[in-house]
Amino acid sequence: MSPNQPGQMPPKVPIQGVKNLIAVGSGKGGVGKTTVSVNLAVGLAQLGHRVGLMDADVYGPNVPLMMGINRTPMAYGERIQPLDQLGVKLMSMGFLNPGDKPLVWRGPMLHSVIQQFLRGVDWGELDYLIIDLPPGTGDVQLSLIQTAPITGAIVVTTPSDVSLEDARKAIHMFHQVRVPILGIVENMSFLNCPHCHERIDVFSHGGGRRTAKEMQVHFLGELPLDPQIRIGGDTGSPIVMRKAEGEPFLELARNAVARTAEVAQQEGPKIEISE
Amino acid sequence: MSPNQPGQMPPKVPIQGVKNLIAVGSGKGGVGKTTVSVNLAVGLAQLGHRVGLMDADVYGPNVPLMMGINRTPMAYGERIQPLDQLGVKLMSMGFLNPGDKPLVWRGPMLHSVIQQFLRGVDWGELDYLIIDLPPGTGDVQLSLIQTAPITGAIVVTTPSDVSLEDARKAIHMFHQVRVPILGIVENMSFLNCPHCHERIDVFSHGGGRRTAKEMQVHFLGELPLDPQIRIGGDTGSPIVMRKAEGEPFLELARNAVARTAEVAQQEGPKIEISE
Repeated sequence: MSPNQPGQMPPKVPIQGVKNLIAVGSGKGGVGKTTVSVNLAVGLAQLGHRVGLMDADVYGPNVPLMMGINRTPMAYGERIQPLDQLGVKLMSMGFLNPGDKPLVWRGPMLHSVIQQFLRGVDWGELDYLIIDLPPGTGDVQLSLIQTAPITGAIVVTTPSDVSLEDARKAIHMFHQVRVPILGIVENMSFLNCPHCHERIDVFSHGGGRRTAKEMQVHFLGELPLDPQIRIGGDTGSPIVMRKAEGEPFLELARNAVARTAEVAQQEGPKIEISE
Repeated sequence: MSPNQPGQMPPKVPIQGVKNLIAVGSGKGGVGKTTVSVNLAVGLAQLGHRVGLMDADVYGPNVPLMMGINRTPMAYGERIQPLDQLGVKLMSMGFLNPGDKPLVWRGPMLHSVIQQFLRGVDWGELDYLIIDLPPGTGDVQLSLIQTAPITGAIVVTTPSDVSLEDARKAIHMFHQVRVPILGIVENMSFLNCPHCHERIDVFSHGGGRRTAKEMQVHFLGELPLDPQIRIGGDTGSPIVMRKAEGEPFLELARNAVARTAEVAQQEGPKIEISE
């Protein structure tokens, strides 16, 4: 299908109409991977791009809450129609299983759901499809990044050693399956006290940049730990939409665009299927 | 094996010598599940109990870093000897795969590793064996809680709606497989600014207690978000060992002891196998 696939990998069939597929992953959960995915997607839309966001965290799908939308998607024929919110096309297991009941599916069922989300959803023409991966480096993640034509991956970490330890594992995982790393994002990088405005390094500071240097990957920026970000997530109003507080997330979106262009160029010409 | 097993479940064979098996879980990663597990284990040891801690988070095993120990365990015959640190017997995939390389194992391999950790480790005589579950409600968690004779489960959450949404899923999962809930712990409940000492509700506040009430489970307490806790984790010195800052974690250990006794009584007489 593509002339420049590495040797032993299965062919990665392009997703029709989707120019760039960006995976957002983390070694550890709770580092703000979904917060980054949601704000990156909305930020890219604000910059004028056509954007989709696929929530691949089928066990803990938080995208509906953070995007402030939860309806059952329609299907026309065999194609599922994504929801549309804040200028972003959305698909999440949360739309299909909206209650508190856990999905205790086993691996093979997950693989087919995720493939369905990738290929059975009518994404239309997109400049960027963001995939919010499940946290960790398990078999769901591995299957997805082995079969999807991912342009590049963003690894989210906090500055704590525990999170960095797991972020290095995630970077190794992407290297193993030859997915280019767009860069590391250090989330919860610092907190400015809302009372005295002094800076608090709750989860330490600087480990993301240091790890990026050590592992020779790009550093995409620091995002603050700000109660407003959490409130934005809990109320479905992503912080990137705010003028001042949103700026670090818009900057991340700009950096992601630049890195995606670099990586796409290094990868050589892409074959796109069009009708 | 036991006269009071619910109908369709496979028999849960007791672990020889282990009186109480406590699972610490969360719907979402990064809420401090391992921090709670480590401090609970060390706290129980400080209260005079014989304690083991099994790190079942095989993809992101952070127990070695947080307990400040990383050696390859010895095996005598077919029994693996747990490591001993701060008065707690330990087993973790981190001891067997200490580098940054990710484990990208598929489900069935995980099940056998976890069974090996439960049954192939020479835990000896323990009052409490704490299992630090992987985050989420996936198949690894399900297999483990279906096959292990768990006395009760602790669910860790932060006060944010996103975390509470996933905590409810975890509680449903334990209910489904009839594992008693010892209670909910609200972690990262509040932060006292180290500069002005004003309180900051970074991740909101009170949702753990409210959710416990709604779901008719016990509430085990609030734990602060304190940079010292993270530093304790990153340097292998669990905060529970400190006189003042450790008190909320010691209190959690006392509450866990009380709730375990209640639950064990409700469950009726246990059959123990001894030599």
